[in-house]
Amino acid sequence: MKNEKVILAYSGGLDTSVILKWLKNEYNFDVIAVCVDVGQEEDLTLVKNKALSTGAHKAYIVDVKEEFVTDYIFPTLKAGAIYEDDYLLGTSFARPLIAKKLVEIAEKEEAIAIAHGATGKGNDQVRFEATIKALNPHLKIIAPWREWNLKSREDCIDYALKHNIPVPVTKKDIYSRDRNIWHLSHEGGNLENPWNEHDENIYQICVKPQDAPDKPTYIEIEFEKGVPISIDGKKYSPVDLIYKLNDIGGVNGIGIIDIIENRLVGMKSRGVYETPGGTILYEAHKALEKLVLDRPTLSFKKIVAEKYAQLVYDGLWFTPLKEALDKFIDSTQQVVTGTVKLKLYKGTCKAMGTKSPYSLYNEDFVTFGEDNVYNQKDAEGFINLFTLSIKIRSLMNYKKENFKKEKQII
Amino acid sequence: MKNEKVILAYSGGLDTSVILKWLKNEYNFDVIAVCVDVGQEEDLTLVKNKALSTGAHKAYIVDVKEEFVTDYIFPTLKAGAIYEDDYLLGTSFARPLIAKKLVEIAEKEEAIAIAHGATGKGNDQVRFEATIKALNPHLKIIAPWREWNLKSREDCIDYALKHNIPVPVTKKDIYSRDRNIWHLSHEGGNLENPWNEHDENIYQICVKPQDAPDKPTYIEIEFEKGVPISIDGKKYSPVDLIYKLNDIGGVNGIGIIDIIENRLVGMKSRGVYETPGGTILYEAHKALEKLVLDRPTLSFKKIVAEKYAQLVYDGLWFTPLKEALDKFIDSTQQVVTGTVKLKLYKGTCKAMGTKSPYSLYNEDFVTFGEDNVYNQKDAEGFINLFTLSIKIRSLMNYKKENFKKEKQII
Amino acid sequence: MKNEKVILAYSGGLDTSVILKWLKNEYNFDVIAVCVDVGQEEDLTLVKNKALSTGAHKAYIVDVKEEFVTDYIFPTLKAGAIYEDDYLLGTSFARPLIAKKLVEIAEKEEAIAIAHGATGKGNDQVRFEATIKALNPHLKIIAPWREWNLKSREDCIDYALKHNIPVPVTKKDIYSRDRNIWHLSHEGGNLENPWNEHDENIYQICVKPQDAPDKPTYIEIEFEKGVPISIDGKKYSPVDLIYKLNDIGGVNGIGIIDIIENRLVGMKSRGVYETPGGTILYEAHKALEKLVLDRPTLSFKKIVAEKYAQLVYDGLWFTPLKEALDKFIDSTQQVVTGTVKLKLYKGTCKAMGTKSPYSLYNEDFVTFGEDNVYNQKDAEGFINLFTLSIKIRSLMNYKKENFKKEKQII
Amino acid sequence: MKNEKVILAYSGGLDTSVILKWLKNEYNFDVIAVCVDVGQEEDLTLVKNKALSTGAHKAYIVDVKEEFVTDYIFPTLKAGAIYEDDYLLGTSFARPLIAKKLVEIAEKEEAIAIAHGATGKGNDQVRFEATIKALNPHLKIIAPWREWNLKSREDCIDYALKHNIPVPVTKKDIYSRDRNIWHLSHEGGNLENPWNEHDENIYQICVKPQDAPDKPTYIEIEFEKGVPISIDGKKYSPVDLIYKLNDIGGVNGIGIIDIIENRLVGMKSRGVYETPGGTILYEAHKALEKLVLDRPTLSFKKIVAEKYAQLVYDGLWFTPLKEALDKFIDSTQQVVTGTVKLKLYKGTCKAMGTKSPYSLYNEDFVTFGEDNVYNQKDAEGFINLFTLSIKIRSLMNYKKENFKKEKQII
Repeated sequence: MKNEKVILAYSGGLDTSVILKWLKNEYNFDVIAVCVDVGQEEDLTLVKNKALSTGAHKAYIVDVKEEFVTDYIFPTLKAGAIYEDDYLLGTSFARPLIAKKLVEIAEKEEAIAIAHGATGKGNDQVRFEATIKALNPHLKIIAPWREWNLKSREDCIDYALKHNIPVPVTKKDIYSRDRNIWHLSHEGGNLENPWNEHDENIYQICVKPQDAPDKPTYIEIEFEKGVPISIDGKKYSPVDLIYKLNDIGGVNGIGIIDIIENRLVGMKSRGVYETPGGTILYEAHKALEKLVLDRPTLSFKKIVAEKYAQLVYDGLWFTPLKEALDKFIDSTQQVVTGTVKLKLYKGTCKAMGTKSPYSLYNEDFVTFGEDNVYNQKDAEGFINLFTLSIKIRSLMNYKKENFKKEKQII
Repeated sequence: MKNEKVILAYSGGLDTSVILKWLKNEYNFDVIAVCVDVGQEEDLTLVKNKALSTGAHKAYIVDVKEEFVTDYIFPTLKAGAIYEDDYLLGTSFARPLIAKKLVEIAEKEEAIAIAHGATGKGNDQVRFEATIKALNPHLKIIAPWREWNLKSREDCIDYALKHNIPVPVTKKDIYSRDRNIWHLSHEGGNLENPWNEHDENIYQICVKPQDAPDKPTYIEIEFEKGVPISIDGKKYSPVDLIYKLNDIGGVNGIGIIDIIENRLVGMKSRGVYETPGGTILYEAHKALEKLVLDRPTLSFKKIVAEKYAQLVYDGLWFTPLKEALDKFIDSTQQVVTGTVKLKLYKGTCKAMGTKSPYSLYNEDFVTFGEDNVYNQKDAEGFINLFTLSIKIRSLMNYKKENFKKEKQII
Repeated sequence: MKNEKVILAYSGGLDTSVILKWLKNEYNFDVIAVCVDVGQEEDLTLVKNKALSTGAHKAYIVDVKEEFVTDYIFPTLKAGAIYEDDYLLGTSFARPLIAKKLVEIAEKEEAIAIAHGATGKGNDQVRFEATIKALNPHLKIIAPWREWNLKSREDCIDYALKHNIPVPVTKKDIYSRDRNIWHLSHEGGNLENPWNEHDENIYQICVKPQDAPDKPTYIEIEFEKGVPISIDGKKYSPVDLIYKLNDIGGVNGIGIIDIIENRLVGMKSRGVYETPGGTILYEAHKALEKLVLDRPTLSFKKIVAEKYAQLVYDGLWFTPLKEALDKFIDSTQQVVTGTVKLKLYKGTCKAMGTKSPYSLYNEDFVTFGEDNVYNQKDAEGFINLFTLSIKIRSLMNYKKENFKKEKQII
Repeated sequence: MKNEKVILAYSGGLDTSVILKWLKNEYNFDVIAVCVDVGQEEDLTLVKNKALSTGAHKAYIVDVKEEFVTDYIFPTLKAGAIYEDDYLLGTSFARPLIAKKLVEIAEKEEAIAIAHGATGKGNDQVRFEATIKALNPHLKIIAPWREWNLKSREDCIDYALKHNIPVPVTKKDIYSRDRNIWHLSHEGGNLENPWNEHDENIYQICVKPQDAPDKPTYIEIEFEKGVPISIDGKKYSPVDLIYKLNDIGGVNGIGIIDIIENRLVGMKSRGVYETPGGTILYEAHKALEKLVLDRPTLSFKKIVAEKYAQLVYDGLWFTPLKEALDKFIDSTQQVVTGTVKLKLYKGTCKAMGTKSPYSLYNEDFVTFGEDNVYNQKDAEGFINLFTLSIKIRSLMNYKKENFKKEKQII
């Protein structure tokens, strides 16, 4: 009788290697290891080989970088979604894409389950599992960290040694990290005390702002319907555009944040994130929107962005509300076409000029000089009606006050 | 028979000097010039003398800096209100306070009208007049720029020369500026083309980021119930605290923004703003809130902040909604007590550490290591119910799909 | 030399007849009278003839009832938009459609202006003019009530008598009314005192609830993607469906409201509205959405509906935000397909049962009896994490309390 | 050695009687039965005696009806909070109050745990436990339905028979009910199929609308700062006021709803609710607010109400966000003082007139006749600026269109 198959989200690290073996030992599964390439900058051939040598029945490497940028990063950028005012959602929106690939392979391989190495304390388990359930409700989900008796890295090493899994000889990095084409996160270590200043030597994509060039760098980014398409007049593919901006931003120390965030599972955690290209794109996109979107649209889009960020952070990517918000956003982006000039300097990134064929900025109306298009007398009528309810209320209060005073006099 | 009295918001500049004379000539008013000191850094004795020499019946200098910081700036800081994601409302919340003082003096002097020099194109006219109507609906409002035939600075100069009003010999600055203790704005000139990069030589409070010190400056700010009270362990009065932070921030090139904004009156305008101390305070306050506020409070407070910013920008300070929002905010600020460590460096200002007796960050729960307080198995139940509606929908879709497939087979 | 042309929104009443003549007299315009048929239940051939006999250069009758229902009423129904919790926007969304037709005819006739008979106190002037400006910014707008010296109905009658305009012999109705296929509004008269109970004899579409049948009426309405398509299993065209529901609802006294509302121009007004078919449709649509939409979608759709209602009420139909909200709504409506059973009885209209192929109600999960799909133990984990931040805060408070107590003891 | 104590939320029904015994048997607890009187209309002396005869160590009856109305019902009414547009939260806000009393008694009795009889499928478990954790994070929580092996009513009866617990001889009602002074809910039975019409014979507080009097009933309710204080001019205590309105409403068949709702735990459920007095109060309160609140306040209060309803429904009563929202609401209610006239008739409840010393309805402004306070010419300026961004956009589009056309010609 053939073994049942399980799909394992495999990274090549100690944890998922132990899980691979454990799934065979505990469940007698044929384990199909899947490593999804979202730009984590690792040698994935080595990862694949390690999976097979650790006992995987089969191993897949799936490059989804283009899909990631086009269908996950750019929609979120267009939304202007930022979690709790600072976090550009780098890990959050990678998870549903990875899970989607796991489901696709599970269906192709007729596997009955999907296993992942996310712990029971974080957001990632929710993001993986929400996606799996949305896309295939019949797949079983296995989360070993919530199930087995291993409690720590030490337990994992013991298990590995006992089962002939190669253990990295280097000392374990004290930080927990997640990297993809959009960002790199650092958690744990001395960051766990929120009063500690983080060590700037941890940066891996960015230089320290102090080490950035002493002269500002200027770039121009062109957008079409909310999507960045060129830098300094040169077109780039979505993936290359992000890489290019990561280079430019990284060299200038752009996009480093150090924040405390509220996890979906109810606790606060602290992280340092490097998102150089993303930070530049958000700044540029915001500046362009200010040129082409009217006030009520900008204002309501912030409410939408807040909800969008929450849904993405919570792993609710494949949900009806998320889809409906995308329709809203795409409609607003029809005019977000134009060019933004940015100045990058030692950790700062500022839009310095914007232009667009859809610009709603009209110099004829705004000029301090004389004009023929705007009748200043209109303002009186505007103010009178804009503040009419204030005046009516004030009259009511006034009458009441005076009535009281009269009564006091008598 | 005695003349009727009018209160004039007087700055000492050419415009309000012309208005002073014009009010006497046109309306035969006794003009009471009032210059409200919100920290505009001018010699107000000179202003007072100029008012009198230009024909004012009486002249007041009113120092409201402490009231400004305590009752206008700090409440807005506690709200976290930022207009269109960038503007810290420096001019906006000064206007209702100035108008309030004008009304108080009008009532004391038994004046029948208030005059102001705001143009018919801007937000300030609305902010002044909304406040006047809210506080005393019976006062007449005179806005000469919407009424008279003078159309430009040149017309003003002609009028001044004709009526013996001293005209400044210096060439008119090409920018229109507004300054108070919180900020300095620049509008007009070559900023009127949004593609133009602004000239960094216009800065008056800040140095250019490139000219800031090559070493970071560290400071610690302590808050009590959302209000900043000390810097580096030393207590400051509200006014002195802002001055001190303006110094520190200005030297480091902090708080310069260059934005296009939507005016209430329907047009877009562009401005460059310097708000060094304010930018530091917003950054610090936000970081502290992340430590002490829970997720639903933080999230809803953003909705409140967005509305608050709009109300302040639109001059709707003295309105029931604004007052009710203040109550909400004050309630959230009961725990916003603690200290924030910031790093200032060549235009960047970043929170590097936070601590608070009300911290909701609990290392016991968040640690990557083993713990006794958090049962990872709980996460499974959490995810199962958090995503239950997703699964139910997915099952429904699955059934529908398979039903379709079956029908196709038959 | 030929006269310039003006398009007049013409109703056949005294006001617009006087305006017709006045436009000829004052401006020497060729007046093109346009009467847009939105279901106002008047003899429009008579209206056309009256226009011509009063001096119109040309007169159009344009039947837009189908466009009205399909492109204005149904989108608003799908949005669930209700102004200030009660008003189903009957007059509001008719105005942009009428204005759109005026613009189309103006462009065809090469007219240079559009005139309307809305007064300077109401919302309709804004709705007309916002639409005209959105669709053709070069057309001049003439609003005689804001311009001429006629101040009252009596002035109009004098003008009419002087210029041979036929004046209706019947005594003027004390109420001001607006009717179309969706609703009928009553304003003015004794309604101007909000303490007065309205006179039930004013109803024109509905019977008084007391006069409705003593037995309930049951109907079933079927929706497809949020749009009603059949009643009791019989398909209807959009227009006929509304007529049919108006009949059924009217006979049962459904859809009468008596409210005070906030006009856009800053004052409160009071109106009585009859919207029998509309009320039934909103009730049915809401009930169906509860069956097929998930909780976060339902909840955020309320925020959207609130904004949508405000935009429609304010005449901002042809704006980017309104268009983007429509995209959001259409996305949510993909599953709003199914049937609702309603009970109508003496003014009440209640959904009594719903069914849908997209139902998210799953009896297997909700039953009080035993089941195999839901593990009650999951709830413990759910609650532990859902309330984790509450517990962390409570622990923090507890520690602080006890610390205080200890200090007091010492 | 003494037994540990547990506090049991005891109703006197079969379930909690079995739990009482089970807690003794399984845990060897001294069980302190607490029955909190929120107006469930049962003989609580019998309940107390049953607790003691079933083996309770001690039994408490706690009458909290006044606290319930004053501190839970009225604040929610002032908020205007309604869950998913229909549900007046009758069960939701009773739970935190009951849990608060359990905690108080637990602390007094030095119990170590609290047990409740809520099942693992519903909202009530969350509401109880969220409250307990908020008020005392050290108390253990026991939810037998999530823990034991009893799966159904039959299992309970077997357990009861085996342990000498009296089993009611009457056939079990097919509906699950919850009653308090505010409402009565019905769930289960044939309601579990959402297409089934509910049986009107289940009503216990209301008559069927068809059986209500043929003549309307009129009442006047007076509010002070948002709180109802008198009916038809007669003052009532909070509790008596609710009873009185339940009588009046019940007789007229007011306040019956039949809805599908989204439970917090992810499933939809269906219920029929009777809330006669509550429905009258919500209608009256809403009508009065329309008279005294300005448009921006009313509009933002709806956003607050939506959030408030969600928090109450989810059991998040004792949370910082809920407290902050209360401050907002109380501020808005300062002017919600006045009288509302209502007409009740066969299931309908409509406000027919309102008056208030804080009325913002000003007949002088709104009248169709001539007036001296409102200058209709102001409307032109208002519209011009209110729609200015629409016009600017339209001009931009127009230019672009014509540019395109020109290019096509060439």
